[in-house]
Amino acid sequence: MKVLILGADGYLGWPTCMYFSQRGHETIGVDNYFRRNSAVELDCESLMPTPNLSQRTKIWEEVSGNKIQIHIGDITNYTFLLSIFREHKPDVVVHYAEQPSAPYSMMSRDKAAFTVHNNLITTLNILYAVHEVNPDCHIIKLGTMGEYGTPNIDIEEGWLEIEHNERKDKFLFPRQAGSLYHTTKVQDTDMIWLYVRTWGLRVTDLMQGPVYGLSTDESDRDPRLMPSFHYDEIFGTVLNRFIVQAVASYPLTVFGKGEQTRGFLNLKDTMQCVYLSATQPAEQGQLRVFNQLTETFSVNQLASRVKEVGDRLGYNVTINSIENPRVELEDHYYNVKYTGLLDLGLNPHYLTDEILESFFAITDKYKSRINRDAFLKGITWK
Amino acid sequence: MKVLILGADGYLGWPTCMYFSQRGHETIGVDNYFRRNSAVELDCESLMPTPNLSQRTKIWEEVSGNKIQIHIGDITNYTFLLSIFREHKPDVVVHYAEQPSAPYSMMSRDKAAFTVHNNLITTLNILYAVHEVNPDCHIIKLGTMGEYGTPNIDIEEGWLEIEHNERKDKFLFPRQAGSLYHTTKVQDTDMIWLYVRTWGLRVTDLMQGPVYGLSTDESDRDPRLMPSFHYDEIFGTVLNRFIVQAVASYPLTVFGKGEQTRGFLNLKDTMQCVYLSATQPAEQGQLRVFNQLTETFSVNQLASRVKEVGDRLGYNVTINSIENPRVELEDHYYNVKYTGLLDLGLNPHYLTDEILESFFAITDKYKSRINRDAFLKGITWK
Repeated sequence: MKVLILGADGYLGWPTCMYFSQRGHETIGVDNYFRRNSAVELDCESLMPTPNLSQRTKIWEEVSGNKIQIHIGDITNYTFLLSIFREHKPDVVVHYAEQPSAPYSMMSRDKAAFTVHNNLITTLNILYAVHEVNPDCHIIKLGTMGEYGTPNIDIEEGWLEIEHNERKDKFLFPRQAGSLYHTTKVQDTDMIWLYVRTWGLRVTDLMQGPVYGLSTDESDRDPRLMPSFHYDEIFGTVLNRFIVQAVASYPLTVFGKGEQTRGFLNLKDTMQCVYLSATQPAEQGQLRVFNQLTETFSVNQLASRVKEVGDRLGYNVTINSIENPRVELEDHYYNVKYTGLLDLGLNPHYLTDEILESFFAITDKYKSRINRDAFLKGITWK
Repeated sequence: MKVLILGADGYLGWPTCMYFSQRGHETIGVDNYFRRNSAVELDCESLMPTPNLSQRTKIWEEVSGNKIQIHIGDITNYTFLLSIFREHKPDVVVHYAEQPSAPYSMMSRDKAAFTVHNNLITTLNILYAVHEVNPDCHIIKLGTMGEYGTPNIDIEEGWLEIEHNERKDKFLFPRQAGSLYHTTKVQDTDMIWLYVRTWGLRVTDLMQGPVYGLSTDESDRDPRLMPSFHYDEIFGTVLNRFIVQAVASYPLTVFGKGEQTRGFLNLKDTMQCVYLSATQPAEQGQLRVFNQLTETFSVNQLASRVKEVGDRLGYNVTINSIENPRVELEDHYYNVKYTGLLDLGLNPHYLTDEILESFFAITDKYKSRINRDAFLKGITWK
């Protein structure tokens, strides 16, 4: 299989490149270094040093004997993306090339406009390139569970049959997201659904919860292959941030009441989910949606787990509830269906104490690189 | 009341400027001449000669004694829009500044990308400018009935209460549009709804059906004040096109089976609806949605009405069913609620034979300017 990975330098992108490459697939990675450069500009760089993508692919080739081809450039430039499609004619394209941070999207008009433009034009360009060059190519788009928000009804897997005044129809499950970033993911889905119906494209939308974890089997082979790991307020996800705060003896920053509940998964399970979707693709004319999570936790539950394990390991972990900078319900109903990926064969890595301990151990090695100023940047939704 | 009209040179924008001005409101119009320039580029200019906006405002001042201030520029440029907000601090902003054509949005990748960028960045900029300069300003955004598509259930007025597994919540009515243009209007609503919830803005979304008609009471005062009237495949709406085709002895172009049913309204009623919404604004933190139509017709019904009246007037009207260039259901359920604007005081101009006759009379005066090549441009959805 020929797989094109867009956003190949990111937290998910680089491990995904190695995962496919390790399994014998021809792997092509593309990135414009947006996240890498932004992290420098905003002073919130990765916990581990991360060689650039050219260097990473060389190290990977030394370690594994497998080649990953890369192109550095911006896929909002259609000419650039089209040339890649024409050169490689991929069987599957994995679309990670969106601006992925909610706080970033709420910082200013300019960052909001960048997020809208980047996330929608990258998606539009992919749809057009597939239609123009290789209409059989399967698009795997990373969505987010945040698109659903926190409705007062059960969250189904992408679709909902609605009965109204004794008539029925099936719709995309209603979405109302809590940040501009999350809203752009609703918007790209609106657009994808249009072209699936109009052009008969095949698409899988992975509605992913926040990912945690620092390593995969591939990255374990050489520390220079580790993913870019963010623990800051802008690009970090909550559990990753808590672990690093615990190691740094910084109070865990719980926003508001902390009863916000979300679905989470291990980085290793993201790899599995993307791979399972790629090897068992959607049909032509199908927008297939999976809710990509393995467990749900409230923020308070995660903080308690980190404290419990951290204290046992000798860290003195404290928890600090701070005023919520976001506009969100802090106490809400949350019941999500997520059986589709299990049916495809997902074998979850649940959040055991052992796994938490391994995160502490890795983080501790990079303790001297922790930037305490990155934990709270003062970004608010208002 | 100080009213800012964005897209002031358009089919709806210019009559709206005159309508508010006539009623004593301080009126500021903004346009970048996108539509005017595109109509030249694509050889589908307005049926009547339309002086530019500077000239129109001079003529309007001569005729009515009222001044309309104008700014020519592109509101995707935030600096430009912000300077206008700071100068005028409007009480209400009417947002017509979107690329409004479905066929245009389906012509090419570049026109698709332009539509996405223009329609979303203009909307984002308005939201930011209101938040930054004048958070009490009421935003009236023109939506389209096309956002709903043709669901198999009754179309409610913007919102739907959904009961699922014995729990309930209220959502934006599910939307699945049939073109990229219509999809950008779903997307701008997603974005508006986010900022209404986050910042407490006040917004009215007018889900408008296709508009028909050539004049308003204001434009009747001088032929140089007539709206820019398009009858072509790209910027023309269906009934307007049929009238011009009938006058030109060109067979009425019905797409496919012609059982596609939509909600329509007279240009004069658009003026009323916008004015009623402006004088009875939404509350802070409210996204108020109205379905803006006065009657529903199938394409075949409209063609028959035009043929009947045209034949009686001595035109020899023929109807030609052509292969549908769009991807849409040609036979579907369609039942729409539209009571909100009637409750505000809308007094509809229904499509009587007399009104159709008046359209024929006006169109006939401009018969020599009809461009027969503009009726069919060969644009397809595929």
